[in-house]
Amino acid sequence: MKTESARAIPLRQVAIERGFWAERQRVNRERTIPAIYRKLEETGRIKAWSGIRTHEMPRERSVVHMFWDSDTGKWLESVAYSLATHPDVELKAIADELIGAIEGAQQDDGYLNTYFPVLDPAGKWTNLRDWHELYNAGHLIEGAVAYFQATGERKLLDILRRFADCIDATFGAEEGKLRGYPGHPEIELALVKLYRKTGERRYLDLARYFIDERGQTPHYFDQEAEKRGETREDFWAQTYRYCQAHAPLREQTEANGHSVRACYLYAGIADVALETGDEELLNLSRRLWEDLTQRQMYVHGGVGPSHSNEGFTFAYDMPTETAYAETCAAIALAFWAQRMFHLDPDSRYIDIMERAIYNGSLSGLSHDGAGFFYANPLAAYPGVNPMGRWSGILESGHFRRVDWFFCPCCPPNISRMIASIGEYSYSQSGRRVYAQLYHDNTVSLDVGGSSLSLRQVTEYPWDGRVAFTVGSEQPIQFEFALRIPDWCSDYKLTLNGARQAVSVEKGYALVSREWSDGDKIELILAMPVERVLPHREIRQVAGQVALQRGPLIYCLEEADNGPRLANVCIPSTAELQAAFDGELFGGVTVIEGEALRIEPSPDNSALYRFHSREQVAASTFRFRAIPYYLWANREPGEMRVWLRSS
Amino acid sequence: MKTESARAIPLRQVAIERGFWAERQRVNRERTIPAIYRKLEETGRIKAWSGIRTHEMPRERSVVHMFWDSDTGKWLESVAYSLATHPDVELKAIADELIGAIEGAQQDDGYLNTYFPVLDPAGKWTNLRDWHELYNAGHLIEGAVAYFQATGERKLLDILRRFADCIDATFGAEEGKLRGYPGHPEIELALVKLYRKTGERRYLDLARYFIDERGQTPHYFDQEAEKRGETREDFWAQTYRYCQAHAPLREQTEANGHSVRACYLYAGIADVALETGDEELLNLSRRLWEDLTQRQMYVHGGVGPSHSNEGFTFAYDMPTETAYAETCAAIALAFWAQRMFHLDPDSRYIDIMERAIYNGSLSGLSHDGAGFFYANPLAAYPGVNPMGRWSGILESGHFRRVDWFFCPCCPPNISRMIASIGEYSYSQSGRRVYAQLYHDNTVSLDVGGSSLSLRQVTEYPWDGRVAFTVGSEQPIQFEFALRIPDWCSDYKLTLNGARQAVSVEKGYALVSREWSDGDKIELILAMPVERVLPHREIRQVAGQVALQRGPLIYCLEEADNGPRLANVCIPSTAELQAAFDGELFGGVTVIEGEALRIEPSPDNSALYRFHSREQVAASTFRFRAIPYYLWANREPGEMRVWLRSS
Repeated sequence: MKTESARAIPLRQVAIERGFWAERQRVNRERTIPAIYRKLEETGRIKAWSGIRTHEMPRERSVVHMFWDSDTGKWLESVAYSLATHPDVELKAIADELIGAIEGAQQDDGYLNTYFPVLDPAGKWTNLRDWHELYNAGHLIEGAVAYFQATGERKLLDILRRFADCIDATFGAEEGKLRGYPGHPEIELALVKLYRKTGERRYLDLARYFIDERGQTPHYFDQEAEKRGETREDFWAQTYRYCQAHAPLREQTEANGHSVRACYLYAGIADVALETGDEELLNLSRRLWEDLTQRQMYVHGGVGPSHSNEGFTFAYDMPTETAYAETCAAIALAFWAQRMFHLDPDSRYIDIMERAIYNGSLSGLSHDGAGFFYANPLAAYPGVNPMGRWSGILESGHFRRVDWFFCPCCPPNISRMIASIGEYSYSQSGRRVYAQLYHDNTVSLDVGGSSLSLRQVTEYPWDGRVAFTVGSEQPIQFEFALRIPDWCSDYKLTLNGARQAVSVEKGYALVSREWSDGDKIELILAMPVERVLPHREIRQVAGQVALQRGPLIYCLEEADNGPRLANVCIPSTAELQAAFDGELFGGVTVIEGEALRIEPSPDNSALYRFHSREQVAASTFRFRAIPYYLWANREPGEMRVWLRSS
Repeated sequence: MKTESARAIPLRQVAIERGFWAERQRVNRERTIPAIYRKLEETGRIKAWSGIRTHEMPRERSVVHMFWDSDTGKWLESVAYSLATHPDVELKAIADELIGAIEGAQQDDGYLNTYFPVLDPAGKWTNLRDWHELYNAGHLIEGAVAYFQATGERKLLDILRRFADCIDATFGAEEGKLRGYPGHPEIELALVKLYRKTGERRYLDLARYFIDERGQTPHYFDQEAEKRGETREDFWAQTYRYCQAHAPLREQTEANGHSVRACYLYAGIADVALETGDEELLNLSRRLWEDLTQRQMYVHGGVGPSHSNEGFTFAYDMPTETAYAETCAAIALAFWAQRMFHLDPDSRYIDIMERAIYNGSLSGLSHDGAGFFYANPLAAYPGVNPMGRWSGILESGHFRRVDWFFCPCCPPNISRMIASIGEYSYSQSGRRVYAQLYHDNTVSLDVGGSSLSLRQVTEYPWDGRVAFTVGSEQPIQFEFALRIPDWCSDYKLTLNGARQAVSVEKGYALVSREWSDGDKIELILAMPVERVLPHREIRQVAGQVALQRGPLIYCLEEADNGPRLANVCIPSTAELQAAFDGELFGGVTVIEGEALRIEPSPDNSALYRFHSREQVAASTFRFRAIPYYLWANREPGEMRVWLRSS
């Protein structure tokens, strides 16, 4: 058993009052959380909880109504994180009223769901593969744990404990229970949260059961299909790879199927591995992590290139314009990354977490906080639907963020991530304190029973200078582990103004000493503009480069660079400059330099021409790249991350 | 009325005994025609004709059974073309037995279909939008006309005249008729063929009616949907653009929807324009031609990039790996191109016809004649399903040709095109004789009542030297119009060995004189290797080049060049050499030269790397490109048409 494994420092201990995330959290509180609530109301998701009793049940297309409760759960979770650091009486009153309705909707046996009791009582627990009751349960449990942490009030937690008990009584390997597990994983990680909060071992055991049972034969999804009068061949997704149930989990070697399901599941596996010390699960986690991050991850930390399965295809398949790279999947990858670190402390996990948060997750939300992307492509063209005019996928807002989706999993997900960013900022293992994400904040810690604060001052991610000032009533011994991001090869450390030799272990600069009040440690991370090269197997962007500075991936937009970005070439010799633009989106660092625009004269309209008969003009212009996460916040136009190079 | 418009010289007058097409036709006769017949038998398509009487009706998934008769029609058409030049008693006996069964299946009112009379009598003529009765009729009519031309026997022609009369009695603008038209065009061009063969004006009028009625309001597809208890919104394709019925045809400006439907329709429009002298239809034809060939055509003459609608998306959208570019669509484009020439004589139409035939059509058939492609992508990777693992589209044989398809429209289509290549070789307008496609053959002509032969000797498309020798009992005045292909900018003409000044008009070198027996005219077309540049709006291949020599587009295959073709760069200064390889596929000209392979060292497995920390190695190697139409005839591997350039 690991007793001194690293754990995240709870977000209530991280005060974020200025800087990058303070602003993102302000927008989340003021715009995103209210906007999502309005949509939950408009679509009947709020009323559904009381409708259980009145039988006045609003009803969307049923396949989505079955997932409604997860949206409520994630919204409550985001509200909880926000209340934890920014109390708001009105918001809490709304949440409490909703919690009251949820309590009223709970069945005598603890079962909780707004769809089945009224609309399809006989359908309850009959299709775990598709019908998401356990997925909903997971998000409600996460919301309940967060709400208890934020408010100290037990009501929602108790409701969800009763539901968890109901689930535990229904599913398991014991005689008389159904040997089922969720088609859409999520409850596994939620049960570990519930276990940690309550100390009730049954919840951890249930999470472990769901992991161990997954993909076993005889296959539960076959058995329940047979009971419904169906066969495996009737499964629309054709293969249980879609839900990571094609083989027992411990035998799996590749990230597979629906990418959000995959990353929630893998996060749950890491949680169970951490809590149980199961070495086989640790090795499974490392194997899946290696496959996903070394063969199946976009440069912006998005995962799952394919629209058709919302998920993975095969190694090194990175289409740009048609990338799905769902917002939820990047968020789920960040969740998993943090858990991997706590299981196997190494900065490489946090490097990926940072990549996924700052790029492929944050792009899911508009700068004004009220627009959402489902898919996060690496290139876009106005009016172009990458799936053809025929897919109906346009509602996923491939080119313009939209205010809601038919299946709105992403909006409350990015909202809860932003609200909880403090929880991803530090980790602690005994007397070692890890600084994970750099941003302006003050963290309060307990080290060996002594209180301590660290005031972090930085303009990160725009600037690589990060200063920490220790606040402590008495001298205190601890080891400060400052992450040296993978993007940084030139850094220095000063302690009270004096340059320090840096000892780096597993990606962390370690400074172990007795610290006194007012001690100031400064980390200076050089942030040059970097050209990113793709792996040689990534055929879609061969010969192209992406631009990165610090943790941010950049892109070119038509608004700054004119149309036909495919014809823009960044010479390998071009000097690339970072420049802070105080006017743009409230102040961002852009990248500028000389680029070539290589194209034939505009009066030549032939579709194909011979080079032997044609002079191709190359003109130079000054390009401007903006952070990828900010794309599509101005007029519609082209966008590209990967750019031709010479 | 145009009285001296150009017409094709019938294929019976074109004897093809050696050279490129003689070999392709031999394989078609010996392998392809028998292979398709076996599949028609195996799948019940042959038995279905007699099953109408016995009620022993084989049945596939019904949506495809509805199209069965078109496969029979196209196979009979191919057989007819083959019999016209290569009599074959056994093959004719098989065809005649089938024709007898077809006759037996005809209903009293002339209606002919193997699906509805037995399997869904009430469904007859109730869903023109989707159920393909008129499409089937068109292919059967084409087969009947061809069979009559080949054999002089009227039986099948009479059967199809009765069916055409039935259709004419059922559909039209006259009181009491249904104002319907086909969801899948094809019958329009077939009715013009029937009109030309029979002289019966009603068939031309019916074709014209189908064209004029298309897309009018109130919309027939709405009306018939209402009768079925459906609405427009229930149409799976979402829009009538899919079947070119979203607006009256004369108002349309862009190629739209399903590309095979589109090109068959446009061919029919050109036919009706030619036969009626309707200037508006001529202008419509030119407008659609311009849009399709200047904005929506692949370099290999394939059209329709999207799998989801099997058709067009929008201007300059040319995905490579995911290109649909159905074999049938390139064939239909060639059909339309020839008709455009006859309507509006100009070599630019034949240039496209040649491009579509030699590249995007011919690629649909394996070198051995028994494998077929449905889609013809511009890049391929082994084991990669471009639609993700989830589309079920693999049966279209995206990487390996297959021996049949669930919907097997392409196999008999490429078969009939090869069998009828003689019909695309020459055109005549009074005393002007056009040489359209160069290949080794002897054509017999009638010019002003006098007989004449032209013996064409050439190794085209491998060599640009084409010699014609006149055979005539007496001196004869005619104008010989030799096409100067758009790919050729350096050509010369000799007459009986003496260099001639060349007068070129609308793409033809015109030589008007009194010709005597034995006169020899030689055209020498320089065939350098050309680098093709894409239009500046084609984002998917910006910065890349394709290789072309003569009419052939080339590609690199892994078999010759190793893997990771995306990393191959053809420097703009590299000398490109054509070399004849007598061993390869019975003798083909390949393109060779020095190329760069630009990639990092193989032991670096990071997915993304910084250029500042990495040396990217560029090694040179001698590449080999083969004609695109021959790809995927060796071991499975990567293929690319568009290659990085510098």
